[in-house]
Amino acid sequence: MFAAVRAHTNIALVKYWGKKNEALILPMTGSLSLTLDAFFTDTRVAVAKDLTEDEIVMDGKRPDDRSIDKIRRFMDLVREKSGNPAYARIRTENHVPVASGLASSASGFAALAAAASKAYRLDLSAPALSRLARRGSGSASRSIDGGFVVWHKGHDDASSYAEQIDPADWDIQMIIVAVDRQRKKISSREGMRRTVATSPYYPAWVDAAESDLLKMEQAVHRHSLEDVGRIAEANALKMHAAMLAADPPLCYWEAGTMTAMQRVWALRNDGVPCFFTIDAGPNVKIICRKKDTDRIVSDLSDYFSAGALTVSGPGSGIRFREHF
Amino acid sequence: MFAAVRAHTNIALVKYWGKKNEALILPMTGSLSLTLDAFFTDTRVAVAKDLTEDEIVMDGKRPDDRSIDKIRRFMDLVREKSGNPAYARIRTENHVPVASGLASSASGFAALAAAASKAYRLDLSAPALSRLARRGSGSASRSIDGGFVVWHKGHDDASSYAEQIDPADWDIQMIIVAVDRQRKKISSREGMRRTVATSPYYPAWVDAAESDLLKMEQAVHRHSLEDVGRIAEANALKMHAAMLAADPPLCYWEAGTMTAMQRVWALRNDGVPCFFTIDAGPNVKIICRKKDTDRIVSDLSDYFSAGALTVSGPGSGIRFREHF
Repeated sequence: MFAAVRAHTNIALVKYWGKKNEALILPMTGSLSLTLDAFFTDTRVAVAKDLTEDEIVMDGKRPDDRSIDKIRRFMDLVREKSGNPAYARIRTENHVPVASGLASSASGFAALAAAASKAYRLDLSAPALSRLARRGSGSASRSIDGGFVVWHKGHDDASSYAEQIDPADWDIQMIIVAVDRQRKKISSREGMRRTVATSPYYPAWVDAAESDLLKMEQAVHRHSLEDVGRIAEANALKMHAAMLAADPPLCYWEAGTMTAMQRVWALRNDGVPCFFTIDAGPNVKIICRKKDTDRIVSDLSDYFSAGALTVSGPGSGIRFREHF
Repeated sequence: MFAAVRAHTNIALVKYWGKKNEALILPMTGSLSLTLDAFFTDTRVAVAKDLTEDEIVMDGKRPDDRSIDKIRRFMDLVREKSGNPAYARIRTENHVPVASGLASSASGFAALAAAASKAYRLDLSAPALSRLARRGSGSASRSIDGGFVVWHKGHDDASSYAEQIDPADWDIQMIIVAVDRQRKKISSREGMRRTVATSPYYPAWVDAAESDLLKMEQAVHRHSLEDVGRIAEANALKMHAAMLAADPPLCYWEAGTMTAMQRVWALRNDGVPCFFTIDAGPNVKIICRKKDTDRIVSDLSDYFSAGALTVSGPGSGIRFREHF
């Protein structure tokens, strides 16, 4: 009645933005991500018959009420599936390089899904684990597996899950640029809703994302960094463009976001194959080859502090652990 | 056989982005602008029987070949319409506050159209002058009149012209924020072509722009700064969003562009009614009331040099002059 799991975060290269079904977290489009080695969550779940509610400790303290709510609702789902009504002690540690700003619900709910399902003796296959993680946070469905992962949008709970399409055992990595946030973030959930409901560009985004996904799968299979990067960058810009057209407009960029984008374009202009992607926040994630890391980090160091830059290779899928 | 004209530039509040007919410069959508007092062009045209080609002096020197080409082709059109094959001496001076970065072809071709048509004795009405200016540069069609001007997209040369819908004799003005350009600009002409041809969002942009134009005309007639500003800001973001989705993506923003946008949002959050619009370049134009100017300029001064900020009220239409 105890399990501990490590799960890595993932960065979407073809983005997930918009739900078809809010309750089941079924996405409007399929998406594709790369799991990252440098960012992970360790979670331990111990079922305890003596508790009257779940006991949750995150990074040594009680998380905010919104997080507690989300975790308890997720645990209720696990209890329902397992037929075991007992509460649990949940301890979770996020391992995120200082100032990276990449505290992700993807690794969090992937680790929780795996640890809780084992502690409650659900014995789930990887696709079933991905489906369970999806119910906590859509992007968590992509953190069960490592390497390049595709989340099939599906049409119901059974068909909407993610799986590895390539182990990413070739020369590709990311440099994460943490950018100071000047404004309060609008949550991804709320941002998605507003974009779906009000952006005149959203229907065209859905078509473009489907087409980008097909092209990206082929680029990954060809191990083409150039194509993976170019499709990812254009896809991210299209997602942010769909948000900018929402009513009221949604803009997650800061001045530092533009600076990082411009440096990527300048470096590419100088012959360094590098590309960016940006999620629902100001941080910029740069896709590049290992050998170009020093050149890119050195260029970025003129604009960002060393602590704001984190290099990461591809990461593995979830790992069950004895303890942590 | 001589005429001198002053024309003011204009800033579109519902943007013109994309041509239906490249040769005649017929736009895909109607647009709406405010003519500005602080930025203007003085142009003098003297027909001279002794010349073997047009003699062009701009700001005291010979302009670049591309500008000379555009001006000569425009003058050929005037010669064709007037039946007078003679060449002309053309002297033009752009009055643009230092570092504003607002050297615009709008005031340039409006002044040239008015001066050349008078020097060649074409005797054109204001709508006919607007149509002629349009052939030099689309946005120039909106600089024949002052105040708020609508360019009716039309369906042929005769029906595509601009006219004043409101003299802007109420409390509205602009603060122009000149932002350092880090990258070479892609011309509006090329940017428009690429967006029309490749952006999956362009068809939705056309619909959105038509709808914004109707709402903006009503907001102008109501003299509602809040509505004019809100519609203008959302319209500009939708235009830039359509460009970001082009292939390859088009981004005219710089880090300073984002900084100015964020300051506008922060000021608005503090209760100052101000809004921005952005054209095919990094500069940000802020729409506000006269009484809020000091507050806004003082806030922006923490981020931009004093020389980068220019305040302008609404401007008048073209004026014929004795000399300059």
